[in-house]
Amino acid sequence: MKDDHAWMQLAIREARKGLGRTSPNPCVGAVVVKNNKLIATGFHQKAGTPHAEVHALRAAGARAKGATIYVTLEPCNHTGRTPPCTQAILAGGIKRVVVGMLDPNPLVAGGGCKTLEAQGVAVMQGVLAEECRSLNRPFIKHVTTGLPWVIMKAGMSLDGRLALGSGQSGWITNEQSRRQVHRLRDRVDAILIGSGTALLDDPALTTRLPGRQGRDPLRVILDTALRLPATARMLQQPSSAETWIFCGPDADVKRAEALIASGGVIKQVRLDEAGQLDLGAVLCELGRAQITSVLVEGGSRVHGAFLRADLVDEVNIFVAPLFIGGNGVPLLDTLGLQKVADAPRFSTTKVRRLGNDVLIEGLIERQ
Amino acid sequence: MKDDHAWMQLAIREARKGLGRTSPNPCVGAVVVKNNKLIATGFHQKAGTPHAEVHALRAAGARAKGATIYVTLEPCNHTGRTPPCTQAILAGGIKRVVVGMLDPNPLVAGGGCKTLEAQGVAVMQGVLAEECRSLNRPFIKHVTTGLPWVIMKAGMSLDGRLALGSGQSGWITNEQSRRQVHRLRDRVDAILIGSGTALLDDPALTTRLPGRQGRDPLRVILDTALRLPATARMLQQPSSAETWIFCGPDADVKRAEALIASGGVIKQVRLDEAGQLDLGAVLCELGRAQITSVLVEGGSRVHGAFLRADLVDEVNIFVAPLFIGGNGVPLLDTLGLQKVADAPRFSTTKVRRLGNDVLIEGLIERQ
Repeated sequence: MKDDHAWMQLAIREARKGLGRTSPNPCVGAVVVKNNKLIATGFHQKAGTPHAEVHALRAAGARAKGATIYVTLEPCNHTGRTPPCTQAILAGGIKRVVVGMLDPNPLVAGGGCKTLEAQGVAVMQGVLAEECRSLNRPFIKHVTTGLPWVIMKAGMSLDGRLALGSGQSGWITNEQSRRQVHRLRDRVDAILIGSGTALLDDPALTTRLPGRQGRDPLRVILDTALRLPATARMLQQPSSAETWIFCGPDADVKRAEALIASGGVIKQVRLDEAGQLDLGAVLCELGRAQITSVLVEGGSRVHGAFLRADLVDEVNIFVAPLFIGGNGVPLLDTLGLQKVADAPRFSTTKVRRLGNDVLIEGLIERQ
Repeated sequence: MKDDHAWMQLAIREARKGLGRTSPNPCVGAVVVKNNKLIATGFHQKAGTPHAEVHALRAAGARAKGATIYVTLEPCNHTGRTPPCTQAILAGGIKRVVVGMLDPNPLVAGGGCKTLEAQGVAVMQGVLAEECRSLNRPFIKHVTTGLPWVIMKAGMSLDGRLALGSGQSGWITNEQSRRQVHRLRDRVDAILIGSGTALLDDPALTTRLPGRQGRDPLRVILDTALRLPATARMLQQPSSAETWIFCGPDADVKRAEALIASGGVIKQVRLDEAGQLDLGAVLCELGRAQITSVLVEGGSRVHGAFLRADLVDEVNIFVAPLFIGGNGVPLLDTLGLQKVADAPRFSTTKVRRLGNDVLIEGLIERQ
């Protein structure tokens, strides 16, 4: 005998199958249950295709009559690229709907539930709501603020160094950590680095996963003065994703033309008071392009700038079991703190060992 | 039906009861077993008192006849402050002896086992040897090299900062981490800090454990020019432990006299090529005084010096979920590395969450 929590847990497991594939839509899972028996499951696979409820109802067919449907997110009540799910639920003869979380869009939240209730369907909401929210943090932030979810990612020595000084590169973290980075890239809409890192490492910024089809996120470079050469590796990739290069108002037109000729997309934004690219403007531009999540991969200046501007939502830091010392490249440049109480803090959500490396994940705390 | 491993596991659990109380002796546990039934247990409690085997045999009395004894460390075969354990085992009528690890002292290793075998006792050794070794790393290092086991301990932000710059103090880690530090102090023979930390934080360097009797380790300050004031808190503690202040050959005699008058013990050592206190000489001096373990608590210069000299054996780093930024006090000053491959590395032995903090423990790898 499974209870509502156990069935919702199953719906959450369904939802996860779409992780990283549904943007800018949320990932959603649904299960149809009758007489405490599982009838059918479904999940949202890709924006523009049927929602989770529709998959599950189709699979259930006539057996949906009188059944309960568990769905991680409130069923939609409007016609988008697909018809409203509330209609499909009513048409299927569903008797009871159990909802994980309401629609995060304040303009439509609760609408789906009300429509169903008005038609005599029993509706329960808020079952494992927090778990359901955690599936879709990027979607929720994007739909409520227009901005993408920002994940600060770095691989460093235990003493907080990204590399040895003197322009030396070389891996700090181990192979398991590097594979995990590609899994992360596979789930986000964009990767972002600064021009310093781009020039030093000349990375491809693609998703490389052994034995399976990765998805390349949009590549984003912060490059105030357009220092990136048109020969950069990231511009030579056989990749369906674009490379966007954000520059300041005074960037050289000739350089811009060369980068455009190599396939780059130039985005000009204003500078902030410190003369750096205005990161709020960068995120706005990305959000407008339906980018719901950005993986910020450094280096020190970019990480520092995002933290100073209070624009980081989540941290994923890979800690390698070695010491580089005080003249290595620090994780962050200065944050300009006056006291420890002002330091950006996170709540630790997960600590994982990856061989001898340790991955620390957390959510930035905001007052 | 328990096998040899399971009984040795029980002996290890016994041994642990003496952790931090037996120095300069090892902690050792023993269990007496007959017909697969537990007869008696025992552990070594304090140097100069009976060994684990003797406790277990006394508790077993006449029931030891024909039994097996499991002991984490090879029974001693010489008369020290107590008579040899091999005699007690033979006198008790023990039929079989299962040993975790041989005596680490190369001059006597295997002697106990040979004596027993010569008397017709069945001996098996090497059962859970690695676990038994890990109980006594400080003892093993001290008995084989004359030097204490060195544990590098620090509490820092995720970006590797001990504190904000500008002489600001203030806790970085949380209460759970700080409690764990006192548990660590309770287990080691000495705590060591540099004069910079001593002047900045003016710590008491005592063991403070809620609701139980802590044991204060020897306090050790590295203070080349004797900058420590005679009024320092660590010299004013109601503590059974001494405070040793290591200084260079040119330290001021007047300052030394003032510190001695306040209860300090002055130890003069030579300087190394860089003009710093020779850390090898410091450890030699501690080892001669039967100090088997030292907890090095910083700051940056001291941690850097121990790593540069390749004198660290174990790391215990408490990572707090916050970012201080590039102008904070680094965990380490420079290590003078030429390439990442030369960086001091450790193998991660344990990763623990302490609330939002993370404790990373490891053993330094040596080629």
